[in-house]
Amino acid sequence: MDRKSFIKKAALGATASAITLTGCKEVISNPGASSKETDYSKKYKWNMVTTWPPNFPILGEGCNKFAEWVDQMSGGRLKIRVYGGGELIPALEAFDAVSSGTAQIGHGSAYYWAGKIPAAQFFASVPFGMNAQQVNAWIQSGGGMELWRELYAPFNLIPFLAGNTNAQMGGWFNKEINSLDDIKGLKMRIPGLGGRVIERAGGSAILSAGGEIYTNLERGVIDATEWIGPFHDYKMGFHEIAKYYYSPGWHEAGTALEVFINSGIYQSLPYDLQAILEAACARLNLYMMTELEVKNAEYLAIMREEGVDIRTFPTEVLDALKALTAEVIQEMTDKDPKSAKVYASFKAFKAMDKDWSNLTERVFYNAIS
Amino acid sequence: MDRKSFIKKAALGATASAITLTGCKEVISNPGASSKETDYSKKYKWNMVTTWPPNFPILGEGCNKFAEWVDQMSGGRLKIRVYGGGELIPALEAFDAVSSGTAQIGHGSAYYWAGKIPAAQFFASVPFGMNAQQVNAWIQSGGGMELWRELYAPFNLIPFLAGNTNAQMGGWFNKEINSLDDIKGLKMRIPGLGGRVIERAGGSAILSAGGEIYTNLERGVIDATEWIGPFHDYKMGFHEIAKYYYSPGWHEAGTALEVFINSGIYQSLPYDLQAILEAACARLNLYMMTELEVKNAEYLAIMREEGVDIRTFPTEVLDALKALTAEVIQEMTDKDPKSAKVYASFKAFKAMDKDWSNLTERVFYNAIS
Repeated sequence: MDRKSFIKKAALGATASAITLTGCKEVISNPGASSKETDYSKKYKWNMVTTWPPNFPILGEGCNKFAEWVDQMSGGRLKIRVYGGGELIPALEAFDAVSSGTAQIGHGSAYYWAGKIPAAQFFASVPFGMNAQQVNAWIQSGGGMELWRELYAPFNLIPFLAGNTNAQMGGWFNKEINSLDDIKGLKMRIPGLGGRVIERAGGSAILSAGGEIYTNLERGVIDATEWIGPFHDYKMGFHEIAKYYYSPGWHEAGTALEVFINSGIYQSLPYDLQAILEAACARLNLYMMTELEVKNAEYLAIMREEGVDIRTFPTEVLDALKALTAEVIQEMTDKDPKSAKVYASFKAFKAMDKDWSNLTERVFYNAIS
Repeated sequence: MDRKSFIKKAALGATASAITLTGCKEVISNPGASSKETDYSKKYKWNMVTTWPPNFPILGEGCNKFAEWVDQMSGGRLKIRVYGGGELIPALEAFDAVSSGTAQIGHGSAYYWAGKIPAAQFFASVPFGMNAQQVNAWIQSGGGMELWRELYAPFNLIPFLAGNTNAQMGGWFNKEINSLDDIKGLKMRIPGLGGRVIERAGGSAILSAGGEIYTNLERGVIDATEWIGPFHDYKMGFHEIAKYYYSPGWHEAGTALEVFINSGIYQSLPYDLQAILEAACARLNLYMMTELEVKNAEYLAIMREEGVDIRTFPTEVLDALKALTAEVIQEMTDKDPKSAKVYASFKAFKAMDKDWSNLTERVFYNAIS
């Protein structure tokens, strides 16, 4: 084939991500921009409601930094006061509060809104989904952002990519997991789609708030729990009461975090403050990823020194959970056209990226590093 | 051991990265900050000199975006005009031009300054080094930034992390590489430490500027060349004249890119513009990583369709090159105390992160993805 016409074809239509790339960039660089002149005497005071406990390490702290950066960049014209979950409103009401304009801005993760928008989960994490590098690429440059903004628009919200937990761990268990049989009857604290996969494997997915997990695990109300990674998990003390710490977090390989802003309020801002908020989101994304990489590596070393028994799920178990995940996602996309639309883009990007990842990052971790 | 005192000990001294973390954060969030009041009538016009050809896809284009973002965020108070290499000054004079204040700001990659500062290479890429996720973590949150700023300070420059090429490919070859013997006598265009490794393996490392590589490869002046990844390499047309495209880029697993600003000029800026520049660097980092991930995956698919013969270096070859790399780095750190100091931090972080990566990202690419 003539090379030029092929490239043109490829750029126009070879993949879903290519199609939406140009539109997506417009959206990213300037959502709802106005050409308003900046009135430097005008000050804004915003409240940021978050889904994290107040000053929660790295995630809540990152939101505090976000507010500082915006304050610095705007020369004090946009002051954001950050609230932990439960301080101004309950954590999981953040979406509604910003949607209604009660608060101007929020920080959380899109899977918390699965009850309202099932498809939102693809913009946080789905089991056997993408890692941080991939989900950032899909959302920011591969067509994801346009779909995300479409999903949130009916709620008067504009989402921004603003953090990632990086890879998480598989959780704490009191028995070895050698086959899918070991999950039968298991009571595990695990939220979201991961929980539905555990149920399909014959276990029970229990929901409990962060503050109750330790006691529930200690008293045998639950047999297992996932949380985040070595840094946060160590602070929860799970290594004191559970026998095994399993990797990897098959249910959260790199959970994207979000800032969401009330769209009317955002659009009424002068253009410079809009651009400042967008850059602060990117800086927050980088901050959380780099802090978590360092802290998780440090606390894993501490756990090793303390003799925590760290295991990796057998490939057989991972393969079985992956097959069950496909069933769960199939049901979800059968029922909900929006989920089907988003998943088509997610899946196309993941498939396209797999060959590239296999040639590079996979070889890096296996043979270079 | 008492848990609290252990954590304290770990936080204070268990790793080099932990030691420098706090200092590092200070430096990152506010290098040379002043508490100057912003004079909104004052305008700044800067020139950015870059090491990239004018409007070079993604890298040069990213610099153009950087200038747009700064313009938007500053409400037009800081205008940056971006020059490709050779437009205002030759590409590799960017460092000196900003050091002397001839230009205010530059963009490139730290290994271009290896002649002046051998240790700078650790802040770009060294063979068998870190990937994008790791190098970002080490520099931004693991103590690297403090060392980098120390290295550039005598040159009146402040470096910022501002981009990453992600994983690169191993290059284009006209014969199969089945063992280290196949590198003997090979004339390969490959710069930097990677070139020294090829020479130690019995090949010749040839330097040629981007514009000459195609012709040199076609005419047999060189037998092989590396460049970047599928996206940029396809545009160079190497697939038309070389037989094999090898992965992975063992010499550049995730090359960090930089903004560098004249320190006196930076310190004379009002504080809001300083913070704006810093956030724009983070946004540029994310932009380059996500664009490259998407475009490389797309162009790899195009190459597959066009029948490009894509190979992976045998593990035996990678292991041999890794051993030679250790010798090259040993020589470098023996000769240069600054390189020894930076490498100690680099190596300690890499060693600490390896266990975490093996448990998570490695399993992700092998069994989850």
